[in-house]
Amino acid sequence: MAARPRVIIIGGGFGGLTAARTLKRAPVDVTLLDRRNHHTFQPLLYQVATAGLSPGDIASPIRWILRHQSNVRVLLAEVQHIDVERRMVHIRSADSVTRSAAESGRSFTLDYDYLIVAAGATHAYFGHDEWRDRAPGLKTLDDALRIRRRVLLAFERAELEPDPERRRRLLTFVVVGGGATGVELAGALAELSRHALAHEFRSFHPDTARIVLLEGGRDVLSAFVPPLRAFALKSLEKLGIEVRTSAVVTAVDEDGVHIKAQAPSSEPQAPDERLRAGTVLWAAGVAAAPIGRALGAPVDRAGRVLVEPDLSLPGHPEVFIVGDLASVTQDGRLLPGVAPVAMQEGAYVARLIRGIARGSQPIPASRRPFRYHNPGDMATIGRAAAVADFGRFRLTGWIAWVAWLFVHILKLTGFRNRLLVLVQWAWAYFTYQRSIRLIAGEDRG
Amino acid sequence: MAARPRVIIIGGGFGGLTAARTLKRAPVDVTLLDRRNHHTFQPLLYQVATAGLSPGDIASPIRWILRHQSNVRVLLAEVQHIDVERRMVHIRSADSVTRSAAESGRSFTLDYDYLIVAAGATHAYFGHDEWRDRAPGLKTLDDALRIRRRVLLAFERAELEPDPERRRRLLTFVVVGGGATGVELAGALAELSRHALAHEFRSFHPDTARIVLLEGGRDVLSAFVPPLRAFALKSLEKLGIEVRTSAVVTAVDEDGVHIKAQAPSSEPQAPDERLRAGTVLWAAGVAAAPIGRALGAPVDRAGRVLVEPDLSLPGHPEVFIVGDLASVTQDGRLLPGVAPVAMQEGAYVARLIRGIARGSQPIPASRRPFRYHNPGDMATIGRAAAVADFGRFRLTGWIAWVAWLFVHILKLTGFRNRLLVLVQWAWAYFTYQRSIRLIAGEDRG
Repeated sequence: MAARPRVIIIGGGFGGLTAARTLKRAPVDVTLLDRRNHHTFQPLLYQVATAGLSPGDIASPIRWILRHQSNVRVLLAEVQHIDVERRMVHIRSADSVTRSAAESGRSFTLDYDYLIVAAGATHAYFGHDEWRDRAPGLKTLDDALRIRRRVLLAFERAELEPDPERRRRLLTFVVVGGGATGVELAGALAELSRHALAHEFRSFHPDTARIVLLEGGRDVLSAFVPPLRAFALKSLEKLGIEVRTSAVVTAVDEDGVHIKAQAPSSEPQAPDERLRAGTVLWAAGVAAAPIGRALGAPVDRAGRVLVEPDLSLPGHPEVFIVGDLASVTQDGRLLPGVAPVAMQEGAYVARLIRGIARGSQPIPASRRPFRYHNPGDMATIGRAAAVADFGRFRLTGWIAWVAWLFVHILKLTGFRNRLLVLVQWAWAYFTYQRSIRLIAGEDRG
Repeated sequence: MAARPRVIIIGGGFGGLTAARTLKRAPVDVTLLDRRNHHTFQPLLYQVATAGLSPGDIASPIRWILRHQSNVRVLLAEVQHIDVERRMVHIRSADSVTRSAAESGRSFTLDYDYLIVAAGATHAYFGHDEWRDRAPGLKTLDDALRIRRRVLLAFERAELEPDPERRRRLLTFVVVGGGATGVELAGALAELSRHALAHEFRSFHPDTARIVLLEGGRDVLSAFVPPLRAFALKSLEKLGIEVRTSAVVTAVDEDGVHIKAQAPSSEPQAPDERLRAGTVLWAAGVAAAPIGRALGAPVDRAGRVLVEPDLSLPGHPEVFIVGDLASVTQDGRLLPGVAPVAMQEGAYVARLIRGIARGSQPIPASRRPFRYHNPGDMATIGRAAAVADFGRFRLTGWIAWVAWLFVHILKLTGFRNRLLVLVQWAWAYFTYQRSIRLIAGEDRG
């Protein structure tokens, strides 16, 4: 083993970044790999998708965040293969976006003593990956920009459309999935059409736009306690959003979606219903990054790695999985794929490695298992309404929204981003505007 | 003729937008067509290209800008054909970015009584359009994002590159064209590499990046008087930029550019020189939008329409050309393709039409010819240095930079944008950071 242990971290999301930062004063050499050059504050992606914030407000270059941490090297690279037996990671420079054949896709090999895999997850289409083009999800900045483009284009096309039936279809937006992302997306879409776009179109009133939120289960925000769910439902309906629960999507096509009502098994099944919509957005399901399966360890149905209590890969105490890629059960429940879980996991693993590197922690025996401490759950529903559950107390409405604002501003990376987002939210609050309404770039589906 | 004359404006840049606004209280019905949904403040595009500002800071939706002007309808559409004899414009909905075959590319026809063509211009590659992919220009937000992506990727690739020769090439940036755009771009690139990226790379020092500014003529900023040119040159060299004048690009390829020194004809021609560079940016030449030629009137070498003194199309007193698409000579000099010219032309034409619509202006006889009043020329050279020529007085250095800042902030559309840009510039000034360093989207060349 080298004088200083080499730690490789795959992924610069909440889990990987927290691990890197926690290793700041550890006697190790860290290499952080990511396919993107920036860390994205995913909880606010829906604000970019609905033209409330700019990409630059919620993302920072990973190497900028870690610039003063001299034991960290950041590489923009794609992982090709992990050889856990030889403790090697094969990477390729992630510059496939440039067209110079001479340089693109150069391969390198890196050795490690410890590996932290924090490659995240994306949305699952219930085995129908062909729906992805028609119903984009919201996990990256590119996803958010794609959704923004489609939503704004729908209104533009409606302005030119003489046929009322087709215009109606163009102005129908379906959001699939009633978790926090789906609820926040639907709420922001309602705001956009009811307020920000008012006065701007001549052939229709933007507030006639129809926004439908589909949830396969019995409730929206099912992670919350029943009173908060009820408040959320009421708030969504007040915004004019049609909430359809127990509604499962059976098909997505050019014309919209097909849904089947989930009837109790005693009743006869209702036939499929067609919902014509110009825009379908996906906020359901979880599919872990394929790298999880490639590690050779057992995975759950979503492809998450079933880790040891210390988050290590079974049989490999020097390999750890953190964040959405790890399947961790605590008190009989699977930990959700949210930022606080990933951050606590990243910090836990980094402290373990730091302890070993300093010689104070035996490997791998007698590691204290990871335990998640929930700081609270929150979700916003459009303008000035939210639900928040901090365990000991719960908030709804305006005060929950203020709490949500406060927490999210504080957690953004960089004082500059905090200041800018605050200015823009204050602006949006008083003017009802959503200002980053740019249709740019091209849609590759 | 209809009760209210119908005015069609093609293009939502400085010329078209000013025309629309000037028609605010005129008894006419205006339709403004643009392929993009936003007006871009082009003088600050180089700030987006070099990660200093977000696209949303310098662009606003056209329909938002005109939302309170009830006699204006804004359509996102592409002009297919103008029939000046029948006074008709054939358009197609500009939604080719979406993939629904059912809706895309629907065609419509619009009649007009007056037509204002303000379709702008782009860069010219001196007959070598195949250079476009290798050396992107800077006219739209998409252009700016493409340049930002390439510049940032060059540094990322250099961090992974073990070969010093190839790394050197990756860290060489060539800007072709020594006008205001080229000078501003080169200055901002120097700032980015000398300050903002410091401390972030482990295998090289970003301030070793080589930035070369190529100008075919004898001077950079040739539109300015000699003392200001000299100051600009000194400022560029202080930033470590290699300025090569009388240097004509003869080829652009994967490996960089070929240049030929322009020797006085008495001296023997020097052979071509090869300049290896990973990134080549284009800020030279003018090519008017093809719609100009399609009007059937005489055009100049760059495709600009040779208009009448009242900016009308020869033989068509009801069709006007404004902005970069018009070739207007005043006092023996061609008016430059800058925002003030386009705005004054747009306002002039709109006032003409307003006068006719109100019955106070005879058509087309005895129109007073258009005359441009130059409010001053300015260019920045990196951080806290600029040149400004207001005719009666000239400024250089920090004070010129403050004047530049002030003028550009004031001219931005929307108070929100002004506030945000000011905050970000203040931030960048005190921290030396350029924060919007995101590599996103895909490069289609």
